[in-house]
Amino acid sequence: MDEDNAGRPPRRSLVSPARRRAVGSVGAGLASGLIFGRAQTATAGPLAIAPWSTQPGEPTDWHPYGAPSPFEKDVVRRFRQAPKMPGSASTLTPLADLFGTITPSGLIYERHHAGIPQIDPEQHRLVIHGLVRRPLELTMDDLVRFPSVTRTHFLECSGNTASEWEGPSGLPVQMTHGLLSCAEWTGVPLATLLDQVGVQPAGQWLLAEGADAAAMTRSLPVERILETAMVVYAQNGERLRPETGYPLRLLAPGFEGNTNVKWLRRLKLVDGPVMGREETSRYTSLLPNGKARQFAFEMDVKSVITRPSPGHRLASLGFHAISGLAWSGRGRIVRVEVSTDAGKTWRDAQLQGPVLDLSLTRFVADWRWDGGPAVLQSRATDSAGHVQPTREVLVAARGLNSYYHYNGIQSWTVMADGELRNA
Amino acid sequence: MDEDNAGRPPRRSLVSPARRRAVGSVGAGLASGLIFGRAQTATAGPLAIAPWSTQPGEPTDWHPYGAPSPFEKDVVRRFRQAPKMPGSASTLTPLADLFGTITPSGLIYERHHAGIPQIDPEQHRLVIHGLVRRPLELTMDDLVRFPSVTRTHFLECSGNTASEWEGPSGLPVQMTHGLLSCAEWTGVPLATLLDQVGVQPAGQWLLAEGADAAAMTRSLPVERILETAMVVYAQNGERLRPETGYPLRLLAPGFEGNTNVKWLRRLKLVDGPVMGREETSRYTSLLPNGKARQFAFEMDVKSVITRPSPGHRLASLGFHAISGLAWSGRGRIVRVEVSTDAGKTWRDAQLQGPVLDLSLTRFVADWRWDGGPAVLQSRATDSAGHVQPTREVLVAARGLNSYYHYNGIQSWTVMADGELRNA
Repeated sequence: MDEDNAGRPPRRSLVSPARRRAVGSVGAGLASGLIFGRAQTATAGPLAIAPWSTQPGEPTDWHPYGAPSPFEKDVVRRFRQAPKMPGSASTLTPLADLFGTITPSGLIYERHHAGIPQIDPEQHRLVIHGLVRRPLELTMDDLVRFPSVTRTHFLECSGNTASEWEGPSGLPVQMTHGLLSCAEWTGVPLATLLDQVGVQPAGQWLLAEGADAAAMTRSLPVERILETAMVVYAQNGERLRPETGYPLRLLAPGFEGNTNVKWLRRLKLVDGPVMGREETSRYTSLLPNGKARQFAFEMDVKSVITRPSPGHRLASLGFHAISGLAWSGRGRIVRVEVSTDAGKTWRDAQLQGPVLDLSLTRFVADWRWDGGPAVLQSRATDSAGHVQPTREVLVAARGLNSYYHYNGIQSWTVMADGELRNA
Repeated sequence: MDEDNAGRPPRRSLVSPARRRAVGSVGAGLASGLIFGRAQTATAGPLAIAPWSTQPGEPTDWHPYGAPSPFEKDVVRRFRQAPKMPGSASTLTPLADLFGTITPSGLIYERHHAGIPQIDPEQHRLVIHGLVRRPLELTMDDLVRFPSVTRTHFLECSGNTASEWEGPSGLPVQMTHGLLSCAEWTGVPLATLLDQVGVQPAGQWLLAEGADAAAMTRSLPVERILETAMVVYAQNGERLRPETGYPLRLLAPGFEGNTNVKWLRRLKLVDGPVMGREETSRYTSLLPNGKARQFAFEMDVKSVITRPSPGHRLASLGFHAISGLAWSGRGRIVRVEVSTDAGKTWRDAQLQGPVLDLSLTRFVADWRWDGGPAVLQSRATDSAGHVQPTREVLVAARGLNSYYHYNGIQSWTVMADGELRNA
């Protein structure tokens, strides 16, 4: 009970001790004063009546399928640079403007190799063949009749954050980390489908092929994905979007994005990797010793602060919540630490539940900006025991010709005027 | 290992015993034969090359903010009946065509009282006043600086499924249960905001007011929502949509939809309910004894099978996965049973995790249709011990003038031709 109620008849406090504990240091800290720049008791009289309160709004069926507010028109996917070929390009997710862990389906990052095919689901087929006893051809209706599972998983392009190998690129988080998204996926477990076709013992690898004009193809080791992989037809509650693989894609949770073959038309059981273009010429890293690092499927443990980040501005001194995303292709996130002094000191951030395997985890931490120099960083640890490295440690191990699988700690420098920079 | 591999060199089975257990009876059942109508080994040769595989698709920046495939154009929100006033109406979520638990933001059900205001977030303010020690006026930027939480919760209109009080209406699930949606919400806990303003002991109720032209207003008991309520600005990862309250709404998880006041501009701490229009003339139920059931906030335990349901057709005999949604405004779902014989016998469905408090839970069950008469039902039990009643039990308790809070067991009758009917 607040001190100025002393002497009044006892009434139960609305905020229970348990709740105060749950709210934690944040609540206690904020209650000591009104610290938000424009949040002033002096202005807390009756609000002016806004024009939209004085006349009826848009009709209820304005959009049978809704769209964001026009005021959010800048929250879109963007190229990092104009592509030479519009069909072989990527767009990035605007992480700085997003919240929670789900990526809206309209903002899931794109990487296409021959544009986005417009597939008629009635005509689409999936064939499962090769080293199997009963090859199978399935329609979309067949697949929906199978027992389904729904799971939330991230997708990350193996080229995500490649801009930072040489040091701070100056780019904002959409451009440095935006080849990253997360959705609730629904489909048929790969194990269920393989049970149907009867895999022969030699069928240890799986060739997945897309129906796009690139016939995007990857080889995957069956045993390593058998517990987790799915053939999915829905995301975030509805059918896949054209750019995420409509009507069908392979989902290999935790594996680099390109192995999650979109517009999936074929799964062939084979006895080894087919050594296709996307696993020899591409998606392979050159190490300092001249060897190639091939089939580096799992995405490494990683995190990034999304708010505040470049493009945001700290409008005043005082409290600012720090918020970001952490993930690992090897399990779940068990810890995220944040630093506001360029890594000299660290403290644990709060992980927002449910913390799921092979999914994005949102972390939050309190911070009061005193106006002085600050460099914001985050460092994630996964359930397999891996800790996100500094750039220096990563470069020492992989050299500067790796391109793929960059997972170094990211720094945002707070300038004196409250702007943030990747510097 | 399959029997026809006997005698070959032993190799490890790709499908481990543990995995077989996880896949469960479904996998075992399906492995005994190819039971899907069009899934035939005879047709599992090389696939024909589709036209979309022969030429580049749409460019990568086709839609900076994506949209569903044109082939999904019928998956939209719909009126149950044409409204007399377009601003005071509701549209329903197409549950039969959705998967998992997240409702795409573009398909979240609508109920508006004076249309959809188009609010400039720079001009929008939230004032918290009344029985507080420090009234507070907040901008949207202020609110985003607060410590945030992200939680997944359902919303259900208290009028959902009112069509079924008198018996089967003949309507499909979008029309009977579509005033139901679920999203991942991000915002500031109500408790954090109340800590800031310092609630006076008499401030036991909260008046929430919207900025729409109806100034939609409800009174809420603070203590009952203090652990769970939030003031939210984001859903499914992005800012709210105009029709879901952009830029700010109250979220009172588990409470009937209308109390989750959209376009929130004012929270006033008061010493009792204000007895406004929406809690006297509306959202109140007339009981058989002539008394009014008022402030029935929590939505009761409920479930419905969404697939198969009217509009779907069982194209052939044999295996069909049954899938549906269960929820309760009083906690989490602990059990869902399904019946295929109109409630004579029941068996447990599988709950797909994570099973969250005050959220939709997807359940699945195996079923083989033998072509005979079948009536599909589901029955949910929540963590507070409540069991979804039959219509008869519900009517005996509430009479036929209740309108709101219908949660009876729903039946879908399978016809001889495989069509399903609400009959």
